[in-house]
Amino acid sequence: MCAARCNSVLVTGCSRGIGLQLVRELAKSSSGPATIIATARQPADCTALQELSQTCPGVQIVTLDVEDLESINVAQEKVRSIVGEKGLNCLINNAGVEHSMDIHTITPEAMMKHFQVNAVSPLFITKAFLPLLQTAAAQSSGMGIHRAAVINISSILGSITCNWGEGANFKSYAYRTSKAALNMVTRNLAADLGSDGILCMALHPGWVRTDMGGPHADLSVEESVSGLLNVLSQLSDKDHGGFKDYRGNNLPW
Amino acid sequence: MCAARCNSVLVTGCSRGIGLQLVRELAKSSSGPATIIATARQPADCTALQELSQTCPGVQIVTLDVEDLESINVAQEKVRSIVGEKGLNCLINNAGVEHSMDIHTITPEAMMKHFQVNAVSPLFITKAFLPLLQTAAAQSSGMGIHRAAVINISSILGSITCNWGEGANFKSYAYRTSKAALNMVTRNLAADLGSDGILCMALHPGWVRTDMGGPHADLSVEESVSGLLNVLSQLSDKDHGGFKDYRGNNLPW
Ligand SMILES: NC(=O)c1ccc[n+]([C@@H]2O[C@H](COP(=O)([O-])OP(=O)(O)OC[C@H]3O[C@@H](n4cnc5c(N)ncnc54)[C@H](OP(=O)(O)O)[C@@H]3O)[C@@H](O)[C@H]2O)c1
Ligand SMILES: NC(=O)c1ccc[n+]([C@@H]2O[C@H](COP(=O)([O-])OP(=O)(O)OC[C@H]3O[C@@H](n4cnc5c(N)ncnc54)[C@H](OP(=O)(O)O)[C@@H]3O)[C@@H](O)[C@H]2O)c1
Repeated sequence: MCAARCNSVLVTGCSRGIGLQLVRELAKSSSGPATIIATARQPADCTALQELSQTCPGVQIVTLDVEDLESINVAQEKVRSIVGEKGLNCLINNAGVEHSMDIHTITPEAMMKHFQVNAVSPLFITKAFLPLLQTAAAQSSGMGIHRAAVINISSILGSITCNWGEGANFKSYAYRTSKAALNMVTRNLAADLGSDGILCMALHPGWVRTDMGGPHADLSVEESVSGLLNVLSQLSDKDHGGFKDYRGNNLPW
Repeated sequence: MCAARCNSVLVTGCSRGIGLQLVRELAKSSSGPATIIATARQPADCTALQELSQTCPGVQIVTLDVEDLESINVAQEKVRSIVGEKGLNCLINNAGVEHSMDIHTITPEAMMKHFQVNAVSPLFITKAFLPLLQTAAAQSSGMGIHRAAVINISSILGSITCNWGEGANFKSYAYRTSKAALNMVTRNLAADLGSDGILCMALHPGWVRTDMGGPHADLSVEESVSGLLNVLSQLSDKDHGGFKDYRGNNLPW
């Protein structure tokens, strides 16, 4: 991914699951980004992440609780000093929560919590890191992660179109609603940031065996992340404002 | 609308705008519902609504602050005693808020407030009134407002598909996101309530000259509401889970 052209990538929610695997794969690749910023809300508790940063000099750990504006601003300052004049090429909003709740068990609090973490946080993280993305975008041309990109890790469960028939079997009011909201946030960002040369899109990682996806999911984290990185490396202007899965297939809103 | 077959309709947010006009038109029609329940959070302040209820015996005013679960439950009890054994045929979730905010001015608080009023409230109002809708549905067959329906007043601004090119000119992160979220809520409800015979769909009223739409909008409230009632009167099973505008045209998610 990235080839030599991409200097820096930041991934949120790297304590485990897809986020941790993204950092692992990026660090392993010889053509990967020079700087990989892995954020977690309690990095001290993440042994795997600590080990990675000790063995891979490109991996830098930054504390970030995505729900906390103050934490976002402190993280931004740290990242600014790490990436310097080159700015930030690729922001991957990956942190997320999911608690399945059907029409009987859903609560207003669960609706608000999922919306906060899965849709509002990515918006305000993107706003905070925008100057760093703009700095990177100003040094290059075309569209893709070689220049500047905001990648929101969404879900096919956030597709309103697909939530029908068999596609509606999985019941999760709060999660589905928050990911549809994230898709709209993504589209708003795409409309606003395209002229700066910042590609914005939503990406579905597949159904993955993580704490969230559970043991019966279709894909290992390795399979999902290898697909995601393959898609990321090929992004161009025609993907701006879009919604794709880990195999590169377009998904309907 | 409704012809003689529809006994009762409930509309939220009837202090002004589209909600008030819906009640006016329903009350005027000789073939309209026998019982029209108009809710408002501070009915004492709504002179127009008070006058309507005094001149039209079918119009009943019920206090309802859509953000307040306690208020929802109290309103449900009142409505249950009004509609009695016939149940409630049609619930129109119309109350909504909109404060335009672009990428520079948007705040987390505005995101949360819009999501609460425009997406979460309709879900919990529907949950609360579900027993009354089920009572009505059990007494009829087919699908439509003659039997039982949940109509969520959404907006084309909540269409992720349409938020592109010229369609993206109107900037409103919080409102657009909350209406996309409402569309997902609608689709979840449709998947869950279809087997009860309760039709669920999202409806866009057009751009209307109300406090929200402003003086330069395309349509008068009369034009919008006459279109909406026409669409409502013709709903059938093929509209279940759909998204239409006031002229009956399908909208993309
Ligand atoms: N797994 C799937 O099948 C699947 C399918 C579609 C989409 N996705 C999406 O993929 C992304 C990653 O999911 P996953 O499967 O890797 O989930 P996971 O194993 O549950 O990991 C979630 C990650 O998000 C972090 N996080 C949650 N709340 C946070 C907060 N307030 N601040 C900072 N970090 C926070 C967690 O950190 P802590 O360890 O500190 O809690 C953890 O690192 C999510 O956006 C998810 O919705 C997953
Ligand atoms: N106008 C348009 O161009 C347009 C276009 C697309 C969609 N819509 C949608 O159509 C619906 C009606 O809009 P409108 O144009 O009639 O807007 P409006 O004139 O601003 O009226 C909004 C209504 O919602 C009520 N409301 C707001 N918050 C409430 C709460 N917490 N509890 C109870 N009621 C509450 C207001 O009551 P108070 O008087 O107590 O504040 C008022 O009755 C909304 O869902 C809106 O999003 C409108």
